[in-house]
Order: sequence, then structure tokens, then C-alpha cells
Amino acid sequence: MPPISRESAFAWIDRGLDERDRAGLTRTLLPRDSADSLLDLAGNDYLGLSRHPAVIGAAAEAAARWGAGSTGSRLVTGTTELHHELEEELAATYGTEAALVFSSGYAANLAVLTALTEPDSLIVSDQHNHASLVDGCRLSRARTEVFPHADVWRADGLLRAHDGPALVVTESVFSVDGDVAALRELHDVVGAHGAALFVDDAHGFGIIGPGGAGAFSEAGLVTPPDAVATATLSEALGTQGGAVLGPRRVIRHLTQTARTFVFDAGLAPACAGAALAALRVLSREPGRGKRVRLVAEQLHEGLINAGLVVNPPGAAVLSLPAGSPSNAVEWAAACRAGGVAVGCFRPPAVPDSTSRLRLTARADLTEQQIAQAVRVIADAAPHHLRL
Amino acid sequence: MPPISRESAFAWIDRGLDERDRAGLTRTLLPRDSADSLLDLAGNDYLGLSRHPAVIGAAAEAAARWGAGSTGSRLVTGTTELHHELEEELAATYGTEAALVFSSGYAANLAVLTALTEPDSLIVSDQHNHASLVDGCRLSRARTEVFPHADVWRADGLLRAHDGPALVVTESVFSVDGDVAALRELHDVVGAHGAALFVDDAHGFGIIGPGGAGAFSEAGLVTPPDAVATATLSEALGTQGGAVLGPRRVIRHLTQTARTFVFDAGLAPACAGAALAALRVLSREPGRGKRVRLVAEQLHEGLINAGLVVNPPGAAVLSLPAGSPSNAVEWAAACRAGGVAVGCFRPPAVPDSTSRLRLTARADLTEQQIAQAVRVIADAAPHHLRL
Ligand SMILES: Cc1ncc(COP(=O)(O)O)c(C=O)c1O
Ligand SMILES: Cc1ncc(COP(=O)(O)O)c(C=O)c1O
Repeated sequence: MPPISRESAFAWIDRGLDERDRAGLTRTLLPRDSADSLLDLAGNDYLGLSRHPAVIGAAAEAAARWGAGSTGSRLVTGTTELHHELEEELAATYGTEAALVFSSGYAANLAVLTALTEPDSLIVSDQHNHASLVDGCRLSRARTEVFPHADVWRADGLLRAHDGPALVVTESVFSVDGDVAALRELHDVVGAHGAALFVDDAHGFGIIGPGGAGAFSEAGLVTPPDAVATATLSEALGTQGGAVLGPRRVIRHLTQTARTFVFDAGLAPACAGAALAALRVLSREPGRGKRVRLVAEQLHEGLINAGLVVNPPGAAVLSLPAGSPSNAVEWAAACRAGGVAVGCFRPPAVPDSTSRLRLTARADLTEQQIAQAVRVIADAAPHHLRL
Repeated sequence: MPPISRESAFAWIDRGLDERDRAGLTRTLLPRDSADSLLDLAGNDYLGLSRHPAVIGAAAEAAARWGAGSTGSRLVTGTTELHHELEEELAATYGTEAALVFSSGYAANLAVLTALTEPDSLIVSDQHNHASLVDGCRLSRARTEVFPHADVWRADGLLRAHDGPALVVTESVFSVDGDVAALRELHDVVGAHGAALFVDDAHGFGIIGPGGAGAFSEAGLVTPPDAVATATLSEALGTQGGAVLGPRRVIRHLTQTARTFVFDAGLAPACAGAALAALRVLSREPGRGKRVRLVAEQLHEGLINAGLVVNPPGAAVLSLPAGSPSNAVEWAAACRAGGVAVGCFRPPAVPDSTSRLRLTARADLTEQQIAQAVRVIADAAPHHLRL
């Protein structure tokens, strides 16, 4: 037998990289410069808190007081009084009995789906759910049934056909298209079947609901005993981390059993401190959430008036169909050349033939910046996409 | 049909919580006070860098310059020049072509196992591997075969029986018991079969190898084309985050396809800055890794002399069998009462009947603190465990 070259172990990777290149789907990391003068309509810093002096100051203070890391699992040395305080205030703001903080929103989603289901559970999952939710379904030992996007009636049918515990999973505001789930209806449906509801509020918390209190408040779910939500600290709160918000028994259970809680280092104090400060800015300035929604509507109106196709935004995310992946890439590049950063979504992040630009509104955008963004995006649009 | 109470949706949880209580297995979150005077032999801040002024200062500076969060996926707005710089220096220190930074070590492990395997791959995984590796195996679409702990011969047999791509997965320093994998032998075995090796170096990087350069350097693997490693930024580097270290093609592939990279917010700048500063302290003071190993040996010697059973430490982690779960809990509580924090591992974190204390050495422990720790731990030990 000829000797096997060590080079060959990962050689299969090149095929995929080449195919991707040929299909124009290779994505590149573009390091931002801190002096970057681009107008940012691509990030998820919806409330403009990532650079707020109180938030930055709290990050520095927390690192100085508690260290640059939590030093271990939350169950060993990784819980500080700061984590505890953050959890208390998150629960109070969200309107749930308790909250539990994770190192990321991704980890929080994996925790809920794996720890709140058993082998005989059914997970009923919206077709447009985020990758972290899909991974959570796959990692759980439960059976998963996917329902067509936003089809409450089909979700009901799936629950009806199942005997045993069930969990219905949806985003509140869908991350790519920005449309909003019918939470009240979904809550009615789970109630009729004794099932539970899980809402990923990554793109709702801080933006929808009174004072930005999130999807439960928006839908009138007051401390629901049969529902949990997750929020990320990396979007409206401008830092990093995730949280589960729900009944006390659920939080106690996750503390004991969720693998991404038990076997993961606790959130860095700088991030916990920043999130707590951001939460307090939001409570002092409860109009920030409303302001984001207004900015989103103004962007929408401007783009529609410029002849573009844009979904009406349910919160802060706008989605513009872009035709082919290469159309999307060229459009985004032209926006960038015009000084505006926009998100560009292509397969495999979105299904084939649904490449699009994704714009995000920010509470701190000025009227001028909104006008500039509309002008640049419209001027850069491929001609066949303009009405 | 009687109406279903919404309270019942999560009622099944109480059974598990009650059982756990009765078995003495309920774990509690003990928030640390920043003025905590406990001697910490429980955390993973091996090099004592979490509170190093240069590291804390860098966290604050990065937050001020780049914001409290990265604002999005690394592929959208979440990559800064700081992330790029950190990746370059991590790869240079580790001795690989490239590196990629994630929001946690957990996320990095999920990325490697899901993106570096295909449905026809075989994963060959050590029985003692960490929960994040086990979850990665489960999340991948590959078949997984577990080999008895450290049994290189069995790993070889599993590879021999498989036709197609394969990945052998092991920790370098096992997180709970602190023993060290036979990496050179495992690398020989994968070489013979054209397979690849994946080393989780969470508890080795910063401690083993010349200057703390990690498991590859320690085992004499120089830029291996058929091996990848992960490191966490939450242990020796004192902050939060994870990294994959490997051949350039592997890193490019992960950038394109790893779901916990593509669909997760980038690491917070404060953590990236802290990790970079910690790496630079380590390169200026390359003796820190050696110092940790010396402290571990001194702890080991002291505890053995006091009549306790302790595994000889391969790096910074010491493991003391503790009998029953309740023995372990009482022992750890008595240590705590004596001023020393130790890790207490019980089911389900470890298999039944292997409850134990886990001690970690730190580079900045003094001779006095080492003597104090030995005295307190030995005095607190259940009598039947002393020889
Ligand atoms: C809907 C949704 N859920 C969860 C996540 C993961 O959160 P994080 O990035 O904080 O890990 C994201 C985005 O990153 C998201 O868009
Ligand atoms: C062996 C091992 N791998 C991975 C991880 C996960 O790393 P992180 O806590 O940085 O997510 C840990 C510990 O937490 C670990 O002990």
C-alpha cells in the first residue's frame, strides 16, 4: 500500500471551497477599522448602545472589579454578584419570574431546546427559525416537526396529532425578513393542548413592547407559566451574551441540567456589566425602542417611494429581495462604495433564489442619515429591481 | 374534556428537581463577592491573568475603541481589526497557519465537529471528552464511535474498520481528571489511516509546551496539515471566547460553513482585547506555564504526604476521589469554611461513584498559599479517604 500523505486528511475541503468560489458564494471577513466612516445599516446595535458612554464605562468598571473573565462555569466560580444583579433586572424588565444568563444567545437557545424537552417530546418549529434554534432541535432528543412559516393553523394540527409534552418554537421578529410572529395566537394554541411556547426574542427585546420590554409584553403575555423567551445581549443591549427568561421552575431546571450552562465558562464580567448598564439606559429612556421602529418606517417609506420592493418592517429589520446572489453582492458593494454598509444574505444563509439585502434601523440615526441611506441604496439598486 | 391548566405545561420539571434534591445532587449558584477572600483553587484562571492590570486595561481600551459589542456576525459587521490581530497572534503562538476566534470555546468545538465532518465521516471520540465535544459529535451528521479513555489501540482499530474520512477527537489535558492524552501516538495512528486529529486544548494552552504554546508544541507537531486544535480564551487567557487553530484551508472552510461562526455574534471587543493582552503577557513572561505546573506538583506532593489519594497532575488540574456525592459536597463545604474554594464534581457532570474534588493550580499562588491549601484540604477530608 502506498504511504498516505498527511496533506490528504483535509483535502476534501478544497472541493467545497472551489465550488463556492465558482458559484460566487465565498464570503470574506472585512475587518472594520475603528475610524470607519461607513453609515452602518448592517449591524444589530439597534438602540445605538454599543458605543454609549455609560455602557462602555460599565464594561471597563466590571473588568476592573471582577476581572477580564468569569474564571469558570457559573456553577463553580463563574457567578458573580454582577451576574445575579443582571438576571434580576432582566427578569423584572421582561416581566418573568426569573432569568438566566449564558455566554451567547446561541448557547441560550441550545439550552432551552435540549433541557426543556424529553425523548417523548414534540418540538414544533417555524420553518424560518434561526440556525441556533435549528441546531437546538437537532441536539435535543425530541422529535421535531417543522411548520410552514407563520402558519399557526398547521402548528395547531401538529400539536393535535401528538400525545405527550410539546414545545412550539418561533422567533418574535424574524432575523432576516423582519416580520413578526403571531404570538398571541400561538399562545392560544399551546394553551389548548397543554403545550409550552418558546419565543426567541433576539430581534424584539429592546425594540417591541412598552419601553422595549419585548415580545411577551407586546403580546400581552403577563408572566406566562407556560412560555419562555430568550434574548441576546449582543443586539439591542450592544454587547455579548444571551438570557433565558421564564418561570422560576424553568430557570432552576436549566441551572441544573442545561449543558451549555453547566459546562461553559460564565459570561465575561465586562459583558455582564455592559448589558446591565444598557438595560438601565433603556429604563431611563424608554422611548428608544419606539424611535427604532420609527426609523425603520421612515427607511421603508423612503425606499418604497424610490421604487424598491421592501417588506413592511415589524420592528427594526428591513428586507429587500435582490434577485441572484451576484446581484445581491454587487448591490451591497455599490452601497458600500456609496458609504452605506448593508447586510447581504445569500445561500446557504437563506434559501436559493431568495438572496436579499438586510437593513437594520438604529435609534440614533438622524433624519439626514436616513435620507442619505435611502438615496445610496436606491441609486445602487440593479435596474431590473426598480418598479 | 376538562380545560388544561397552563401551569401544567412545565409541571414535569418539578419531578426532576425533586428527585435531584432527594439525591443530594442539587447545585446552587454561589455569587462571588468582588472582595471575596477565599483562596481560589476552583477556577480556571491558571496563569492568574484574569486580574492582570495589562489584561484589564486592554479590555477597557477595546470597549472604548470598538464598543461594548461586535454588533453582529463576524461575516457582517462583527469582525474588527482587533479580532484579526488576535487571530494572527494566536496562530503564531500556537504554531499553526491560521486561527479563527469564536464567542466561546463551546462554540469553537461545535464548529470543528460539525464543519469538519461529512455524513460519511467517522468520529472517533475519547470516552472522557468534554460535554461540548460530545454535543459536537451529536450535532454533526457523522457516525460517532467512542473509545475507552486513552486507549490509542482501540482508536486505531476503529479507524481500521472504517472506509472514508475520519476525525479522532481528544482533549489534551482532560478537564476533570487532569491527565494528559498521548498525542504523538494518536497523531501516528491518524497518519497511518489518512484520518485527521482534533485536540481540544482548553486545559493545555498556556500551560504545556515551550512557553505555554500548547499541546501541538508539547507533542512536537509542527504546523501539522492533518490536525486542528481548539483553545478557550476563558481559561489560561483569563477572559471569554474560543479559537480554532489549524491549516489555512480548515480556517477558510470554517469561516464559510461553521454555523456557530456564521450565525453567532462576534466575540465582544473587550474579550478580544483582553485575550490579546494576555497572550502578550505570556510571550513576555514565558515561564508562567512552567510555574503553574510546578505549583500543581507542589500541591500534589503536599496532599500525597498528607495521606490523600491524588492523580499525578499532567498540567494544572488535580483530581481527588471523594467517595459518594454527599462526601464530595461535605468535603468541599469544609474546605470553603476553611477559606479554600475547590471544585466539586458529582453526577451528572461525572459518572456515578466517581464524585471528586477538582483543584486547579495557578501561576500566582505563593508557597504560603500552597501550604495553606494543602492543610485545609487535608484537614477537611472525610476520615475514610485518608490512607
Ligand atoms: C434570531 C436569533 N437568535 C439567536 C441568535 C444568536 O445570538 P448570539 O449572536 O447572541 O449568540 C441570533 C443572532 O446572532 C439571532 O438572529
Ligand atoms: C475541555 C473543555 N473544552 C471546552 C470548554 C468550553 O470552553 P468555554 O467555557 O470557553 O466555552 C471547556 C470548559 O468550559 C472545557 O473544559
